[in-house]
Amino acid sequence: MLILTLNCRSFSVQYQLFDWGQNRTLASGNVERIVIGDTFLIHKVPGKEPRQLDADCADHTQALQFVLDTLTDAKDGVLPDVASIRAIGHRVVHGGERFTRSVLIDDDVVAAIKETANLAPLHNTPNLAGIRAAQELLPDLPQVAIFDTAFHQTMPEKAYIYPLPYDWYKQHGIRRYGFHGQSHLHAARRGAALAGVPLERCNLVTVHTGNGVSLCALKNGVSVDTSMGLTPLEGVMMGTRCGDIDAGIVPFMINEAGISATDMDLFLNQKSGLAGIVGRRVSRRTVVDEAVVGDARCQLALDMESYRLRKYIGAYIAVIGKPDAIVFTYGEGWEDWPVRGMALKGMEQFGIEVDLKRDEEALRGEREMLISADSSKVKVFALPSGEEMMLNEDVAAIMGWPVREAGAA
Amino acid sequence: MLILTLNCRSFSVQYQLFDWGQNRTLASGNVERIVIGDTFLIHKVPGKEPRQLDADCADHTQALQFVLDTLTDAKDGVLPDVASIRAIGHRVVHGGERFTRSVLIDDDVVAAIKETANLAPLHNTPNLAGIRAAQELLPDLPQVAIFDTAFHQTMPEKAYIYPLPYDWYKQHGIRRYGFHGQSHLHAARRGAALAGVPLERCNLVTVHTGNGVSLCALKNGVSVDTSMGLTPLEGVMMGTRCGDIDAGIVPFMINEAGISATDMDLFLNQKSGLAGIVGRRVSRRTVVDEAVVGDARCQLALDMESYRLRKYIGAYIAVIGKPDAIVFTYGEGWEDWPVRGMALKGMEQFGIEVDLKRDEEALRGEREMLISADSSKVKVFALPSGEEMMLNEDVAAIMGWPVREAGAA
Repeated sequence: MLILTLNCRSFSVQYQLFDWGQNRTLASGNVERIVIGDTFLIHKVPGKEPRQLDADCADHTQALQFVLDTLTDAKDGVLPDVASIRAIGHRVVHGGERFTRSVLIDDDVVAAIKETANLAPLHNTPNLAGIRAAQELLPDLPQVAIFDTAFHQTMPEKAYIYPLPYDWYKQHGIRRYGFHGQSHLHAARRGAALAGVPLERCNLVTVHTGNGVSLCALKNGVSVDTSMGLTPLEGVMMGTRCGDIDAGIVPFMINEAGISATDMDLFLNQKSGLAGIVGRRVSRRTVVDEAVVGDARCQLALDMESYRLRKYIGAYIAVIGKPDAIVFTYGEGWEDWPVRGMALKGMEQFGIEVDLKRDEEALRGEREMLISADSSKVKVFALPSGEEMMLNEDVAAIMGWPVREAGAA
Repeated sequence: MLILTLNCRSFSVQYQLFDWGQNRTLASGNVERIVIGDTFLIHKVPGKEPRQLDADCADHTQALQFVLDTLTDAKDGVLPDVASIRAIGHRVVHGGERFTRSVLIDDDVVAAIKETANLAPLHNTPNLAGIRAAQELLPDLPQVAIFDTAFHQTMPEKAYIYPLPYDWYKQHGIRRYGFHGQSHLHAARRGAALAGVPLERCNLVTVHTGNGVSLCALKNGVSVDTSMGLTPLEGVMMGTRCGDIDAGIVPFMINEAGISATDMDLFLNQKSGLAGIVGRRVSRRTVVDEAVVGDARCQLALDMESYRLRKYIGAYIAVIGKPDAIVFTYGEGWEDWPVRGMALKGMEQFGIEVDLKRDEEALRGEREMLISADSSKVKVFALPSGEEMMLNEDVAAIMGWPVREAGAA
């Protein structure tokens, strides 16, 4: 019962081959620079050195063929042929209001994803290209779409409607959708288990960390609010995205500096956040290193990201009441990132006492850690991200395969 | 020691004549529809029926002349002639980073207000017109500028810098300024006095309510954060302004619906908030009345405004730690507005227990009221707005007049 999951972006295809019965990853990797040229693939097989392979891939179909060739390669492969793959899971970023859960892909689903593409052209368009590629190359396999937005469809109206002209919602679909659904779901499940409270009675704040960062407020185990909105731009400060700003800045800068609406999108999404404050795209590691030696702008970036995160945690506790736990996922670049501890420090008013030593240990680890003090009324956990596993679980559930024991992988 | 304070907007001039020595308002009023035509003035003298007077005022100078004529009118006036006025106070909305306190107006100040006008063209331009009018008609009087933004200049960098390209701050002044400074200062002073804590050691959340609504977080008596930003658009949901939204919505709607950047400003500032959700500009009274009889959109508007207010209170408590008090000012349209109680209900996690009966009483009153329960760890107060009084205090301070006893007016 092998599952191939795909995360297709404009210029890359991320893949994972997972054995559901054996509960282990057989291989994973990433094809980069497709369409652009000089395409290469990083292929990882547990217990072996990663391999870099080259090929030219002009589109997502060629990239998927490259993945399948690698998986079945005599030397680097892990399969005799593709026939042993039983299902494909596609991460699809935007499911609009139509998709409240993962679904088996058919023509209707493809049409609906296409319709939703205007809400997330940079994401849904390559997601669709990946679906078409898989339909072409593996026509007999069932394919499942797993939506980033679906998990948040439980939000109440007061959380997802914007205080904008109401017909913008009706006519253009302008509302809060939220993203990182699989990650928040995983964090919530593990948080509930670690706090010893059944998920359906559990109140949580979950924080997905990576280059993109989002928070979710969960009441009785379901998402009631999340920091990302119509697009992944809203919310806390991120690696290159601004998060919350005065919306009046956008028309102001369009009029004042003559920036076009399209370029504005680029400024807000790719040249803001940490990159905006530091003045260039940098790794989080560099920001910390330079802040330590006295770089004021890097220190400001740390202060701002933690400050804005802290305000969201306060706001979400106001929404859900006493949390059973606050759960952070480990994210790319967050390995040495002091912002988590900075955000939590001094929140005793909320019953939160962070243990900065534990937090620091957790930053280096890859296991589930309690990072609050033993005396803390609210438990805080840090966990490895479980996004990938959620994709596999949804595929298996739709295939009707027996439920795996939680835990390993 | 009479002070004339002026609040000049594009099409109106609000005035108040205050006797500093006697500590009482002699007259106040508003000239409406200047420039537009059919100008009229509503003139109020304490203890008398308000009077409506007509005249044509093509500009702010004619409007101020109309005010001076009314104040010295044999029948409606309160003064024999204008010579007894000793100083003029102008409310000026945007002081940029230059003005951290009220100042005596000279040519440099006028030039600086002009320079800042690009940040708030709709406000600073008529403010300047009012200053020029007063200089022309009352050339010998000292004039004081009191800035809405000055009170918030104590904010730390992490609160006022946006996670945007840093040179937008350096080159275009893009930062959080905040507004309603006089109102927050008054609320803070009274909140500290009522809580029995010296202002300089007092931590507070103050909420200015009106058509515009803003919050301020105060640590040790000074503003450390506020919900309005570069413009008065940011923050909680308001009468016609959206407050916080995904900034990505702006370029999205410009591209998707072909709205111009200038029209976008109008949509966000004048057709959003309660007006956006209800679908038309309505009084808060109407929203409540229609919600009660089952109008879903009006109910949504109430739910959204209170929900967004609640999140800000949670966020600001995360910033300041345990508040000594939360202070709401009474605002126009908030007389029967249940949103304050809705926002505070169920915040026991924060030590806040609102007493909804007291809150309801306070909505009808015009005096300082405790609206939290006696058992509440955090005290919540509702107060009449003190914006006008702060203008007079700043004028008197700059004139070097003896300090009035706090309290009455």
